Amino acid sequence: MAGNSFGKLFKITTFGESHGVAIGVIIDGCPAGLTIDLDFIQSELDKRRPGQSKITTQRKESDTVQILSGTFEGKSTGTPISLLIPNEDQRSKDYGHNVDVYRPSHADYTYDAKYGIRDHRGGGRSSARETAARVASGAIAKLLLKEFEIEIFAHVTSVGAIVAPNLDSNDVLSLLEKREENIVRCADPATANQMIDFIDSVRKDGDTVGGKVGCIIKNCPVGLGEPVFDKLHADLGKAMLSINAVHGFEYGSGFAGSEMRGSEHNDIFLAGDQPKTLTNFSGGIQGGIANGMDINFVVAFKPVATIMHNQQTINSAGEAAEIKGKGRHDPCVVPRAVIIVEAMVALVLADHLLRNKVVRI
Amino acid sequence: MAGNSFGKLFKITTFGESHGVAIGVIIDGCPAGLTIDLDFIQSELDKRRPGQSKITTQRKESDTVQILSGTFEGKSTGTPISLLIPNEDQRSKDYGHNVDVYRPSHADYTYDAKYGIRDHRGGGRSSARETAARVASGAIAKLLLKEFEIEIFAHVTSVGAIVAPNLDSNDVLSLLEKREENIVRCADPATANQMIDFIDSVRKDGDTVGGKVGCIIKNCPVGLGEPVFDKLHADLGKAMLSINAVHGFEYGSGFAGSEMRGSEHNDIFLAGDQPKTLTNFSGGIQGGIANGMDINFVVAFKPVATIMHNQQTINSAGEAAEIKGKGRHDPCVVPRAVIIVEAMVALVLADHLLRNKVVRI
Amino acid sequence: MAGNSFGKLFKITTFGESHGVAIGVIIDGCPAGLTIDLDFIQSELDKRRPGQSKITTQRKESDTVQILSGTFEGKSTGTPISLLIPNEDQRSKDYGHNVDVYRPSHADYTYDAKYGIRDHRGGGRSSARETAARVASGAIAKLLLKEFEIEIFAHVTSVGAIVAPNLDSNDVLSLLEKREENIVRCADPATANQMIDFIDSVRKDGDTVGGKVGCIIKNCPVGLGEPVFDKLHADLGKAMLSINAVHGFEYGSGFAGSEMRGSEHNDIFLAGDQPKTLTNFSGGIQGGIANGMDINFVVAFKPVATIMHNQQTINSAGEAAEIKGKGRHDPCVVPRAVIIVEAMVALVLADHLLRNKVVRI
Amino acid sequence: MAGNSFGKLFKITTFGESHGVAIGVIIDGCPAGLTIDLDFIQSELDKRRPGQSKITTQRKESDTVQILSGTFEGKSTGTPISLLIPNEDQRSKDYGHNVDVYRPSHADYTYDAKYGIRDHRGGGRSSARETAARVASGAIAKLLLKEFEIEIFAHVTSVGAIVAPNLDSNDVLSLLEKREENIVRCADPATANQMIDFIDSVRKDGDTVGGKVGCIIKNCPVGLGEPVFDKLHADLGKAMLSINAVHGFEYGSGFAGSEMRGSEHNDIFLAGDQPKTLTNFSGGIQGGIANGMDINFVVAFKPVATIMHNQQTINSAGEAAEIKGKGRHDPCVVPRAVIIVEAMVALVLADHLLRNKVVRI
Repeated sequence: MAGNSFGKLFKITTFGESHGVAIGVIIDGCPAGLTIDLDFIQSELDKRRPGQSKITTQRKESDTVQILSGTFEGKSTGTPISLLIPNEDQRSKDYGHNVDVYRPSHADYTYDAKYGIRDHRGGGRSSARETAARVASGAIAKLLLKEFEIEIFAHVTSVGAIVAPNLDSNDVLSLLEKREENIVRCADPATANQMIDFIDSVRKDGDTVGGKVGCIIKNCPVGLGEPVFDKLHADLGKAMLSINAVHGFEYGSGFAGSEMRGSEHNDIFLAGDQPKTLTNFSGGIQGGIANGMDINFVVAFKPVATIMHNQQTINSAGEAAEIKGKGRHDPCVVPRAVIIVEAMVALVLADHLLRNKVVRI
Repeated sequence: MAGNSFGKLFKITTFGESHGVAIGVIIDGCPAGLTIDLDFIQSELDKRRPGQSKITTQRKESDTVQILSGTFEGKSTGTPISLLIPNEDQRSKDYGHNVDVYRPSHADYTYDAKYGIRDHRGGGRSSARETAARVASGAIAKLLLKEFEIEIFAHVTSVGAIVAPNLDSNDVLSLLEKREENIVRCADPATANQMIDFIDSVRKDGDTVGGKVGCIIKNCPVGLGEPVFDKLHADLGKAMLSINAVHGFEYGSGFAGSEMRGSEHNDIFLAGDQPKTLTNFSGGIQGGIANGMDINFVVAFKPVATIMHNQQTINSAGEAAEIKGKGRHDPCVVPRAVIIVEAMVALVLADHLLRNKVVRI
Repeated sequence: MAGNSFGKLFKITTFGESHGVAIGVIIDGCPAGLTIDLDFIQSELDKRRPGQSKITTQRKESDTVQILSGTFEGKSTGTPISLLIPNEDQRSKDYGHNVDVYRPSHADYTYDAKYGIRDHRGGGRSSARETAARVASGAIAKLLLKEFEIEIFAHVTSVGAIVAPNLDSNDVLSLLEKREENIVRCADPATANQMIDFIDSVRKDGDTVGGKVGCIIKNCPVGLGEPVFDKLHADLGKAMLSINAVHGFEYGSGFAGSEMRGSEHNDIFLAGDQPKTLTNFSGGIQGGIANGMDINFVVAFKPVATIMHNQQTINSAGEAAEIKGKGRHDPCVVPRAVIIVEAMVALVLADHLLRNKVVRI
Repeated sequence: MAGNSFGKLFKITTFGESHGVAIGVIIDGCPAGLTIDLDFIQSELDKRRPGQSKITTQRKESDTVQILSGTFEGKSTGTPISLLIPNEDQRSKDYGHNVDVYRPSHADYTYDAKYGIRDHRGGGRSSARETAARVASGAIAKLLLKEFEIEIFAHVTSVGAIVAPNLDSNDVLSLLEKREENIVRCADPATANQMIDFIDSVRKDGDTVGGKVGCIIKNCPVGLGEPVFDKLHADLGKAMLSINAVHGFEYGSGFAGSEMRGSEHNDIFLAGDQPKTLTNFSGGIQGGIANGMDINFVVAFKPVATIMHNQQTINSAGEAAEIKGKGRHDPCVVPRAVIIVEAMVALVLADHLLRNKVVRI
């Protein structure tokens, strides 16, 4: 109820604070018999890891994951899989000056107001460090999806006002490779260079900037998604909005669809063995249920709140105070967020895959 | 698990098909002692009712609600409240020609693919008629929120490319009255007239059009929302995306926030008895938890899929077929969707109000 | 959270008070494609119905069930199945004298203390009338179990100190027929006559008496049950203890097993195509998971609290008061409880059947 | 859904296998502001620890618990509390001979049948070692209950046929001290000696024996428990039946109540400030809701399945095989089970305490 779990049948529960002993996650409901490739899990974490390039936070964390339970001789056993990531570089001193001062557009004030107590070191539980647990468990979800040949491809589509050209969805695998060839994870190399330069200049200003991440899901089985409240796009939307700094979500025609007429928006079915549609304004989902076309959506991230400027604020007594930017933070979250988006998508799909196993006698 | 429930502590489960005997909802978890004003529930349903104006579907339903359980002498008793709305105007014949043909951008194909069986009459369970159950239970949630003086104010902000001017959030109550003075439920009378004319012309074309609904929540208690997966805006986003035809959701700075810098986006705290912020790009929510400022968000609706044109499609055997638009449908959903948006917001807030009661010893 | 739901994948939510408009139940999660035999559902309700014999309450209720949703042309569609049973014989006047007086060993005082408000007519929500909703939904669960040839056989094993001889588990079907040949639902005709005479004499005394119900489940698939908290016998136990008046549950060797040694209690496996055990002290469940042997358990019911004697008690002000037995009540619940036990077993098994579909990739 | 969680608002999820790296538990929903006394948690684990006396298993585990998250400066913060207990004495070799042979009355066969894969070392997840995680989290639940002065007192009431005299419920605290003065945890010193001698002789026979644990809850607030499916005794019963080796549960009058008449069983209310009852056959719970009287129940444990005798059995191919008792096991579980019973009771009550906070506006 306290909201640290996600999923119903493939269910994760994350725990841990930014500057505590460790963070981690339990997966309850991973089917038995799945080969658990620890190297793959680690490689996913490495893509999210801080300090991976000049445009990410310089906090040093190896983010080495351990499996504590739920596997035997390399396979899942159907019992809870527990993954632990010890915290290493906990420079809590960086936060000593903030004990009593509320950082603007952070969760300091709201946590205090809600709980009356708060682990102030590095944002505690509100830190995006929690997403490492999502990426670790999402990697196991991806291993499950691979058995069904489902592929998830997230990539940076904009940084500030720099927007990547639409990508050719027919060539996702080669684009995916291109994405990993640049540190901003944009599928278009030329735009990637612009984005990197821009983020670097923002960083030198002591400032931050927002951006967008697009995502395409290929080979999603027809029928995933529940028709009323747990529509596939509703669960994807919630998953995205639960990621730190996300302020918007749209799928298929999205916000632009609100300006269209039905006669242009309707996706005409084409005859054939498996129904396809001529257009895909539905974004691969109709009535909340996957129709076999590519699923696509976009996620908007606000700029990181921690900047290296002096800012006016208040303290916990409600008095005026000044805050100086310290700590090590990302000038733009989207390069690392790409991996978090994919992990959350994998968790949503793994859950709906299992849920779909029980809809017919 | 089949996803017909929403909420955890203030939990609703809806049932019923468009052309079945009745639709309805059970509320499990409504606190005892709440005065249940049946007239208010009915008045909310009346605002969602079909046939209320020339720009909505002409299906005739009185949508008269009955309370079957859970109240005693006008008050909630803490036991499940069951609300029933019999279906009246079930012209199922209108749908006889569609038994075997998949309507474009409807859920006909995906339901068949998922379940292998489908009540094809009027969309069955995928019909927006299900939202009457949401509005009825949302009305009871609103009664609970009134005890805390929480107010929800949704209104149409765009129809197609016609966009209403930003409203003055300092004057919400008078705007709310203005909204009900026109049939499109736009808070700006001049824009409302344009919208109505436009919808009417679209209707005469046998076509449909999308639009957007904005929403402001006033007096939301500080502390509502859970910090990780069940962030207040994530639950609001899921609630909105679960409404038929919704393709996008943004809150606070939204998609525009992705182009901003941290130094402009950060909301500076102002000293005082209860913290306020100078700007509100956070949309009233920080770290997933309400901070006491107005909560605001926007929802994008695609155009209704049922049009009065002939369309190419396929039948359940995968063969080419033609479909002729019939039935009675809305040319634009947003005038009625305003009420559904408010109902879902009320359900989210009622749930989080209760959840917030258990976070401290 | 308010606890009116049971099951996780095959999930029911019941509603309704004893003397309200109606009682009912929603089943969310019934797989699509199941033939819904309304006559069978009604026949199960008829076995639970009040007024069926001289040894049950004389309240007259036809308990006619209606299906409001979730089926199409006689089959389940995968959407919520809603079942309604209108109340007919609501002699609320019988309860007028009890408005303010707490009946001994009823739930009057605890409901008032918990909620501060209470529908006092006939026990309101605490009335065993709620179990009609369980029987109706349990009948649909039974229809699902029939597809797997699972059989549930409950029967009265004792009334007061009158104990039926152990039955031969090899001949369950013919015993089942015998059970329905007598009004007390005991599988042994001679004991049945003793029980009936005894209940009748107790009734003439204006008194009530307890009893026990035994249950055997045949053909339960190996593997049902989850190993830790949701052990099959733990879920069966909770199901039984949730039935009004139940004070005890034991399975397999039960309480007697606490006096045995491991060397006599261990069930030795026998070689063969499907493992069987020489004895069955495990009651068909090992480590919380069905092993394919017959599952057997016993449920103890206390005597009904409503007696036709004058009793000392208190009123809602805490003052001494006297209560006179009125109303129409069962002198012994076990003859009707047999059907409720079976329904709850069916609901547990249907749920675990579905849950077991997702444990392997 | 896989059933490794218990509780709804005060919710635990346990993980870990008997001979894996560690076992542990996450508590999601512990209210903020609770003083977390690590020494107390450890002292509870010490009472459950193997090797504590000559009548328990000689496996050596210090069961040292670590807190990984959820506390700050000694207090709970409202975020997930994660507790880890590393495994130390993992003599997996003891189990090498059992890889392929199903131990009678263990979960080897059913796990294999359910999952197709099994960590066979020491029972893996089916080992009672999992209950250490329950005791650790139950200790935190006890800390919460202490704030409400709720006391739980479990004790051994029988070992085989040796039955302790009924204890005087007016003198629970002094009895509790006496319980800890003997290694079998019986509140009656003379009976305790008989039990210890008997267990010791059974152990020398290479055999095991069952027993019973009684439990009294004092100062349970009136109103705890939900009235329909989540009756307080139903949740207690499920909690007990989820403990390894439990075969029976009864509360209040229990099985004996099935032989009583209503006129003797009814608990007459006594006038006064807070209602009390003359007798307590209801066991402190009426209509599923605590009435303020002492709650009492009894739990029956079967004998441990691992004996030091040669036994006939089968292997995973279904062929006849012989098994030799090895490993280190308890000759009787009840002395250690007392602590597990208390932990599960504490978890049930903590959950219902929180649930009860939301039943009134």
